[in-house]
Amino acid sequence: MATDQRAKADTLSLRQRLLSSSCRLFFPEDPVKIVRGQGQYLYDEQGGEYIDCINNVAHVGHCHPLVVQAAHEQNQVLNTNSRYLHDNIVDYAQRLSETLPEKLCVFYFLNSGSEANDLALRLARQYTGHQDVVVLDHAYHGHLSSLIDISPYKFRYLDGQKEWVHVAPLPDTYRGPYREDHPNPAVAYANEVKRVVSNAQEKGRKIAAFFMESLPSVGGQIIPPAGYFSQVAEHIHRAGGVFVADEIQVGFGRVGKHFWAFQLQGEDFVPDIVTMGKSIGNGHPIACVATTQAVSRAFEATGVEYFNTFGGSPVSCAVGLAVLDVLEKEQLQAHATCVGSFLMELLRQQKAKHPIIGDVRGVGLFIGVDLVQDEATRMPATQEADYVITRLKENYILLSADGPGRNILKFKPPMCFSLDNAQLVVTKLDAILTDMEEKVRSCETLRLQPCSVKHPPGSTGPGCRAAAGSRPS
Amino acid sequence: MATDQRAKADTLSLRQRLLSSSCRLFFPEDPVKIVRGQGQYLYDEQGGEYIDCINNVAHVGHCHPLVVQAAHEQNQVLNTNSRYLHDNIVDYAQRLSETLPEKLCVFYFLNSGSEANDLALRLARQYTGHQDVVVLDHAYHGHLSSLIDISPYKFRYLDGQKEWVHVAPLPDTYRGPYREDHPNPAVAYANEVKRVVSNAQEKGRKIAAFFMESLPSVGGQIIPPAGYFSQVAEHIHRAGGVFVADEIQVGFGRVGKHFWAFQLQGEDFVPDIVTMGKSIGNGHPIACVATTQAVSRAFEATGVEYFNTFGGSPVSCAVGLAVLDVLEKEQLQAHATCVGSFLMELLRQQKAKHPIIGDVRGVGLFIGVDLVQDEATRMPATQEADYVITRLKENYILLSADGPGRNILKFKPPMCFSLDNAQLVVTKLDAILTDMEEKVRSCETLRLQPCSVKHPPGSTGPGCRAAAGSRPS
Repeated sequence: MATDQRAKADTLSLRQRLLSSSCRLFFPEDPVKIVRGQGQYLYDEQGGEYIDCINNVAHVGHCHPLVVQAAHEQNQVLNTNSRYLHDNIVDYAQRLSETLPEKLCVFYFLNSGSEANDLALRLARQYTGHQDVVVLDHAYHGHLSSLIDISPYKFRYLDGQKEWVHVAPLPDTYRGPYREDHPNPAVAYANEVKRVVSNAQEKGRKIAAFFMESLPSVGGQIIPPAGYFSQVAEHIHRAGGVFVADEIQVGFGRVGKHFWAFQLQGEDFVPDIVTMGKSIGNGHPIACVATTQAVSRAFEATGVEYFNTFGGSPVSCAVGLAVLDVLEKEQLQAHATCVGSFLMELLRQQKAKHPIIGDVRGVGLFIGVDLVQDEATRMPATQEADYVITRLKENYILLSADGPGRNILKFKPPMCFSLDNAQLVVTKLDAILTDMEEKVRSCETLRLQPCSVKHPPGSTGPGCRAAAGSRPS
Repeated sequence: MATDQRAKADTLSLRQRLLSSSCRLFFPEDPVKIVRGQGQYLYDEQGGEYIDCINNVAHVGHCHPLVVQAAHEQNQVLNTNSRYLHDNIVDYAQRLSETLPEKLCVFYFLNSGSEANDLALRLARQYTGHQDVVVLDHAYHGHLSSLIDISPYKFRYLDGQKEWVHVAPLPDTYRGPYREDHPNPAVAYANEVKRVVSNAQEKGRKIAAFFMESLPSVGGQIIPPAGYFSQVAEHIHRAGGVFVADEIQVGFGRVGKHFWAFQLQGEDFVPDIVTMGKSIGNGHPIACVATTQAVSRAFEATGVEYFNTFGGSPVSCAVGLAVLDVLEKEQLQAHATCVGSFLMELLRQQKAKHPIIGDVRGVGLFIGVDLVQDEATRMPATQEADYVITRLKENYILLSADGPGRNILKFKPPMCFSLDNAQLVVTKLDAILTDMEEKVRSCETLRLQPCSVKHPPGSTGPGCRAAAGSRPS
């Protein structure tokens, strides 16, 4: 049982003493202490209510009563490993199979998206007999050694690129080499993958897998052009590799129109492996790998057991089933379409009003607002994004910025995020951007005078520049 | 919500269709369907009550009401990631720190023992700047790619030994090169590690870490000779590496006398990294890495964030705290000493009676019964162990066999395992061994006549041999 609630400063100082500083806090200069969650809201120790625009793990809403109840009922009865027969694991696998193309019919249960991607890597290697992996630039696939290796978002800052890893450009039609004016960006970006594969093969390397998030998230809320996946899969299959669709952040109805984000690419496209995590347990540690019989059989042929202590436990599967039930009962997929479209529309209105918004892109409740220094160059407005996030937090709105330039405002809220929430968040965003623009203007007028404290970083006046430098980005 | 209970055959056939056969069932020829658990008991769909002698995950007992309640209370209030301040994570880290030597004062929270060992590997490599790992033969450290690589128990059947992995012999004083008659097996086995390190260094390799379970479990319930760890640590430190004590299966009071199994090696020994899992959440997916400030700081110096989506969530930490509370309130550590000693004594009496028992070893509720074909050669009685396990299961006792020869009966029950349970299990074991001996004798008398169905495998009569071959081991 937890002790009586500590003063926030006490919690912070204990955390600084006992936890590694590698485990970072949001808003490190003024972190938030959260003590309660409900639906799309989080509450701090003083009762302050925050709108949560970022927690894609609390998929059907923080502390959803049906999910909590399902966990509790099963926790009271049985929670053991999957070496005994139990209904929950087969019921859950069956329910998941109903959401997927028929070919993806073998399931493995695990505890985290990272564990799922690591198993996907093992499956791909065993099936193909190859070792190498093609990934997209800026991708992040998990915190494990094997996944740091295939995550340019991480390895660029650590050990660097391994010889068995090959990086293709993000299919980013806003800032990448092939843009909205290109006649066929899907083919052009897929040809980049083909080129990367060919280069690798020329060095005698053999491709086991292509990994990508169905919608690249830390890469900057990218919506790949339709047709890209099929083209890429063709190149990868020809090289003897498999296509791994990482749906950990983006699956489970978030995109609204479809249950899985890879389905945005058309009915004819089916990945060889799909990995799931985060949202599927609404906060309970659950993950899953779905694959084909062919891939699974190659793994089974080694004769070596795969055992995951907690994976597929009766409690994990009861929670997973409850999340599926709530998604259905509350029609959250249709809700994501509706609220997402509304939010996109509001954000596009903001784009027309504020030149700092270079692009608004998204689908369902997966939306990115790309802040730029200049519409022509599309240079990321990194410091401005950080400033906006901080100001939103002061307005009790939790949002984050990501992408290679850390300039893309990332919307990925719990699926119960409402029309009213969308309206309020955009109203606040509008006010902050308007205020920021005014301050920049006044600062430019005053020129050599330093600006007031809460001014936007990265502004052009010299006073602004100095103050901007004082905010670590 | 789960559907109404399925018929066992239906559950099995769905499982065969939807789950990979790499995820194995206990007793695959006649698996058990378990629908309820309480304390040290598991119940099948017909109400049959099994004594659970193997589930070290259900540490304080299946479905312990205080642990279940703690999870439920927190699940209703908040379950989010550790990027916000929360009391549970700091309270839990503080409570864990009180059980450890002062030097081990920085904590990372994760979801599984595998994730913990993978992080330990990353920490060790970052701190030392080296890549290589020394492990013990037959060791198992987890199901992830990086851990398969350092698990001879697995890699021997898969990709083989990587050039950066070096294997030292198990410090097994019963069947290893240095036995109970050796004047100083601790030094002798530690010198084997020294030799392995030297050989690696001669090839230009640099040692990042030595990994070992504080009591090797799948290695065969091994109790390393006292003084071994300090000696090994000296050799490893001299090579610039760190000592990682894997306490995932054996920590948290199981050994009775101490909270951690590494403490059996003396007060002066402190590992550089300790990994925890399984037992610490009583079935909820929780794991932890504890390390020194020096190791942690080297990792922090990269400037790269370590983020684990579910690790250290308010629910995980509430559960972890509740497990610690129950351990204390019910004095389960002292209980493990008492029941463990009693069980060891009973098993030693069996050893005097049944020549198939070559060795009984253990500490607290971590006990191995080593079955041999012959007292002189100590050849593993593999088929006999499998037979005993199957007969025990028919008697509603769940036990498993492990070790390189799959001949060691492994006791690692929930910590509430009672004196009565110990008495009953040993009485049943005695009856099975007696029956087995009688059947072997009658079989030998009859010689050429095939034996009856439930006879022990591996017996010397030709009829026995034929029948033995029919049981897959």
